[in-house]
Formats: sequence, structure tokens, C-alpha cells
Amino acid sequence: MADQYAQSGEDGRPKEIPAIRWDEPPEGPVLVLLDQTRLPAEEVELVCTDAPVLVEAIRSLAVRGAPLLGIAGAYGVALAAARGFDVDDAAEALAGARPTAVNLAVGVRRAQDAYRGELARSGDVERAAAAALGAARALHEEDAEASARMAERGLALLDELLPGGGHRILTHCNTGALVSGGEGTAFAVALAAHRAGQLRRLWVDETRPLLQGARLTAYEAARNGMAYALLTDNAAGSLFAAGEVDAVLIGADRIAADGSVANKVGSYPLAVLARYHHVPFIVVAPLTTVDLDTADGASIEVEQRPGFEVTEIAAPQVPLAGGEAGGGVPVAPLGTQAYNPAFDVTPPELVTAIVTEEGAVSPVTGEALAELCARSRQITRTF
Amino acid sequence: MADQYAQSGEDGRPKEIPAIRWDEPPEGPVLVLLDQTRLPAEEVELVCTDAPVLVEAIRSLAVRGAPLLGIAGAYGVALAAARGFDVDDAAEALAGARPTAVNLAVGVRRAQDAYRGELARSGDVERAAAAALGAARALHEEDAEASARMAERGLALLDELLPGGGHRILTHCNTGALVSGGEGTAFAVALAAHRAGQLRRLWVDETRPLLQGARLTAYEAARNGMAYALLTDNAAGSLFAAGEVDAVLIGADRIAADGSVANKVGSYPLAVLARYHHVPFIVVAPLTTVDLDTADGASIEVEQRPGFEVTEIAAPQVPLAGGEAGGGVPVAPLGTQAYNPAFDVTPPELVTAIVTEEGAVSPVTGEALAELCARSRQITRTF
Repeated sequence: MADQYAQSGEDGRPKEIPAIRWDEPPEGPVLVLLDQTRLPAEEVELVCTDAPVLVEAIRSLAVRGAPLLGIAGAYGVALAAARGFDVDDAAEALAGARPTAVNLAVGVRRAQDAYRGELARSGDVERAAAAALGAARALHEEDAEASARMAERGLALLDELLPGGGHRILTHCNTGALVSGGEGTAFAVALAAHRAGQLRRLWVDETRPLLQGARLTAYEAARNGMAYALLTDNAAGSLFAAGEVDAVLIGADRIAADGSVANKVGSYPLAVLARYHHVPFIVVAPLTTVDLDTADGASIEVEQRPGFEVTEIAAPQVPLAGGEAGGGVPVAPLGTQAYNPAFDVTPPELVTAIVTEEGAVSPVTGEALAELCARSRQITRTF
Repeated sequence: MADQYAQSGEDGRPKEIPAIRWDEPPEGPVLVLLDQTRLPAEEVELVCTDAPVLVEAIRSLAVRGAPLLGIAGAYGVALAAARGFDVDDAAEALAGARPTAVNLAVGVRRAQDAYRGELARSGDVERAAAAALGAARALHEEDAEASARMAERGLALLDELLPGGGHRILTHCNTGALVSGGEGTAFAVALAAHRAGQLRRLWVDETRPLLQGARLTAYEAARNGMAYALLTDNAAGSLFAAGEVDAVLIGADRIAADGSVANKVGSYPLAVLARYHHVPFIVVAPLTTVDLDTADGASIEVEQRPGFEVTEIAAPQVPLAGGEAGGGVPVAPLGTQAYNPAFDVTPPELVTAIVTEEGAVSPVTGEALAELCARSRQITRTF
């Protein structure tokens, strides 16, 4: 199964497989995902022919990461429309597949609105389906552009905060090309630093329980020839204590109106460590991650995932079962109860800056964030 | 292989297998260890017939935990003596098997001194061997007694710091009967709280990379019928933020003269989180863990372990290879470099109290620690 779709580039190295792509083979339109549960052992594509398959792929984390979830959600609506399924049913199922990343619901709504709008105008379901696909493609492209601008702005901020270069950056979870239409969020900034000759070291938290750092960020760092080293999440403390971390860069799954940041579990302890050691803690996320309808950190719904993710170890060769059974190797006594929140919430006072494609907010306050969002909406309206 | 030595107790439940025991079958004396790399999947005993086998068992973590390492080191010297090997060679190899836990070298020296002393007095190698064994057995018994006293003193401190009971205690790594001649250090305090009806919840950090929390502490908590829940190390932040932790209890591998505490990697981040959330951070360790010859935290040698412990996942059924090759399931791209310190160091200002068998020190200062050690030596001399 490995590399079944892999193509060779001009340099003979396998070309990078996109995290998501729309395809239209003779059998009908499909959404093709790089199955992230198999990485780095195998590069396998997963073909979705309808929304329920995509919902399962989202739940099992075959596709994941806030910006990519938004893109996947939009394409999922377009897929349902193109294949003649009930679009509103599909949209509802997709938007509710995972609760914390706001981008998912936002992406779904955007394609659904485009579908409904065109249907109301023309009464033509084919044109409505095309409109949904157009909305998904636009979101995909915008995300790639946003990614490039976040990288630029993030690097400028790093250079400002840490004059002299040679940055040693700690990151958590995976925020690169695997979560984005472009090169990602926090990872894209580290990659920009690498290309500018300014990255001395990328410290990669393994990110238990699902090891997105070990499996995905290390994979992306290796592919890009970056100087990186992997560590258990709890070894980050030793790095801070030794003065080996110049900045922490993470992504976000939802940013509340007050600037509270929900991100992969383990982000908050890094924020506390960063504060204790006077190290900048920088969140990089597109504006679609900001949810002004969520007032504060306490209002963010944090997904609780099955305990078997902690009580069992799933080998990366074996896809994770998203449902009742684990299927991994048990590492704790039978019947052990686990506490397994997928995310944690970092309050704004611990965040040095939030970098978006439209600019950075620092210090992080609800007012500054609201202003940035208002300015961005104005720009969008003007052009 | 499982349960090959297991015996049934009066209640029909399998009797607990001691972490370490001296045995004298017709073939000659042996040191028998419960192989901790196989837990909780299998309860297998590992029979050491000479010091090199024990050295390997120490390196591969079949036997581990600061107090138990001291006991094992002492028995190892006794074993070499009883079997007619060179005692000084054995002592040197054993003392250097792992660098951070001071108890190992202390235990080795105690049995070695007993051997040398008796040899100098009587010139009789058999009597010298018996003296070494006597020293090991005395250390074993003293550790069990120390454990009981630490539990009592630790519980008294908890009751003082947290009046009202119903303690929710977070612990890291494994500090129970598996590391001790008795019921352990930090875990023994939690167990005492449980027996007193004062333990509402034991939060068990899984303790990456080797999962001593998931494999060993959960195993001991389950056997003792305690209310426990397992979590990834990085989920502790969410518990603190939610106000779900009343105190942190950990053990120690070495306590420097200034009160700096070397313990399993991941302890320091908990200390920083505890401080940020105004939660007591309590270290429980026998006085043999205090090393007045190590001036401060920076002087503690922290063992760096092989990267494959992080880049591969070893199933608990498969014993960990301590050497060049991992043999586990790779979870990171081939060639990934890992940063893998086995321990970290918590400065005294982050430690609320150090609880020993002779009393607690709080606030933790070099002076208070020196005074406690001096008082204890006086007691030892008097009786």
C-alpha cells in the first residue's frame, strides 16, 4: 500500500503528497486525503466518496489540524453536493465531527452558504454544487496565501524579539503542510527561519498521546532538511532550564474573543514554562481560527478523547480506531481509567503574541483582537 | 513465563511478588528481581547469579528506583562475595551502572565496607561475604522502616497543608513497593492517605518515555484498590488549570546539599506548574538520597539515555534493549535525533517540602537539610 500514489519529482526524490486534493476520476468526484495516521511509516491516500467517510476520517484523525479541517469540511460539502446527497445533512455531520477547532464549522458553513445562495439564485443543483466546490477551492487557496503571510510576519516578529538570529524554537504537535493548504502555521514560521538561515534548532515535542510531533512534525522537518531534535513532552522543562529555547511557536484550534488559545494538550504547560523562563510564547493561526462568538477560554468546548489513546500504544502502521476499541498494545493494567483531553486552553496573559495573516496582536487583548478582525473584514470588503 | 513464581495468598489472589529477594537454592546464592520492564503484562522474575547480570538489569531498568537501586547494589556486592568473585571489581561496576541515583553507590559502598572490614578483622572471606550480605539485609530492612516512617510523616504533612482531606494527588514516575524494601516513597504517602480514607484521587502521569507511571504506578494503584486515573504527562497542565490537583508528590534520585532535587524527567515542569497554581510540591525520599557531597543542582550528573527510547515505542512485552539497538516500533522518521535526559533538576525554591524518614524540611534550604542530616547521624550513632 505504501507510496501507492507517490510520484517522482525531477530530482528523483518522491514528490510531496498533498494533505488534501479534489479529484474527478471517471467514477465521479472524490476527496483524496493523505492518511496521517499512517505517517511516517507509510504514505497512503484515503479516498472519500461521500461525507460519512470524510466524517470518519476526521474523527480518526486521518485528516487533522485546524486550517486543514476547515478546507476538508468545505470540500466535504462540495462532495455531497456533487454526488447528489443531501447537502444540509452532510454539512451538519461534518461540522459536528470534532468540537474544538472552529475552522471546521467555518469551512463547512462557507461551502454550504455558497451552495444555498446559488440554489436560491438559479434553482440549478449542478450550478449550486459548482458554487460549493468553488468556495472550497477559494478557501484552500486563501489558506495557502494566509500561510505564506503568517510565515513572513512570524519571522519578522522573531527577528524583532530575538535579534541576532540563530533561533532555537520549540514547537508542539504538528502545524506544517499537513494541516494547511500551504506550509502551515507555526511550522511555516520555523521553515521560513530555516530558509533564511536563521534556524539553529527546531525542538520537536513528541506530543502524546498520538505523537503528532514524532510522526508528523519530525517527518516534515526531515523532508525540509531542518536541524531538528525530538523530545518527550516532559523533557521540554530541561531545555528551558538549560536556556536552550529562544521561543515557543504553536498553532491554535480556536482563539476566543478574549485571546484565550485552545490548542493541542500540552500547550498550556509550555506557556507556563515559557513565562517562568521569560521566553516568548507565540501563537500562529489564520484569522479563521479566531472565534468572536466564544467569549473566553472557559467557553471553549474541549474534546475529550477515548482513554485507550493513553492506556494503549497504537503502532503507526496500524490505523487508529476512532470508536469503542483501541486495538493497540496495552501499557497500563486492564480497566485503567484515563483522563484524555485533546486540547488545553492558554489564557491571553501567557501569550506573547498571536500572529495572523493580517498582522500580529501583542500584547494579546480582546480589544486588539477585535480590532484586527474588524480591520481584516474591512479589507476583505474593500477588495 | 508469566507468573512463573507467583504464589497464591490466603485470599486466593496472587501474592505480591517482591521487587527484590535474596535466595539460596542448592546451586548457590542468587539475587532474584521482578523484571520491571515486563510489567504490567507479565510478572517474570529475573535471576542474577553474578554482578555483571545485575549491572545489565540495572542498565535496562529491569530493576530501578533510587532506594531499590541502593538495595540491589548492596546485594550485588554480597552476591559477588558469596560466589567468590572479585568484590572490588563488582562494586566498581555496580556503582557506575547508572550515574544519577546516589543511593546505588551508597548501597554498594555500604556492603563493600562491611566486606572489607570483616576481611581485615578476620581474614576470612566467608565471614566477609556474610558481613556484606548482612549489610545488604540491614539496608533492605532499614529502607522498609524508612518507607513506613516517610508515609506517616508525609500524611501528617498533607493533613497539615490540606485540612479537610479528600486529597487529589498528582504523582510522576513510580515510587511504590517496586522501588523500595517497603511501600516506597511518594507512593507510600498516597497509599497511607488511601488507607486513612483521605485519598480522593491519585492522578498518575504516564511518564514518558518508559511509561513507568502507566506500567508500574497504575499497576500498584490498581493492586491496592486506590481511585486513580492515568494521564499523558502534558495533560497535567489541564488538571492544574481546572483546580483538580491539591498536591504533587514525587520521589527523588539525588538531593544536592542546597536542596536541589534530581528526579525523573518531567518533575521540573510539574514544579513550575505547581508554583504557578499555588499547589504544594512535595518530595518524599529517604535520607540516603541526600548527597551532601554534591553542592547544587548544576553539579548533579543527569543520565542521558539512548534516543531510541523516544524514537521507538517498545511494547511492554518486549524487554527494552539497553544497548545500541532499540527493537521497538519506530514512531519517528529514520535517523531522527532525540534529546533524552532521564532526569531533571528542580531548584529548592520550587519545592514546598522534602519529607524524609527523620523529618520534613520546609522551606527547603541547604542549612535545614544539613541540620536534618546531622541530627539523623547523631541518632544513628546514639542507638
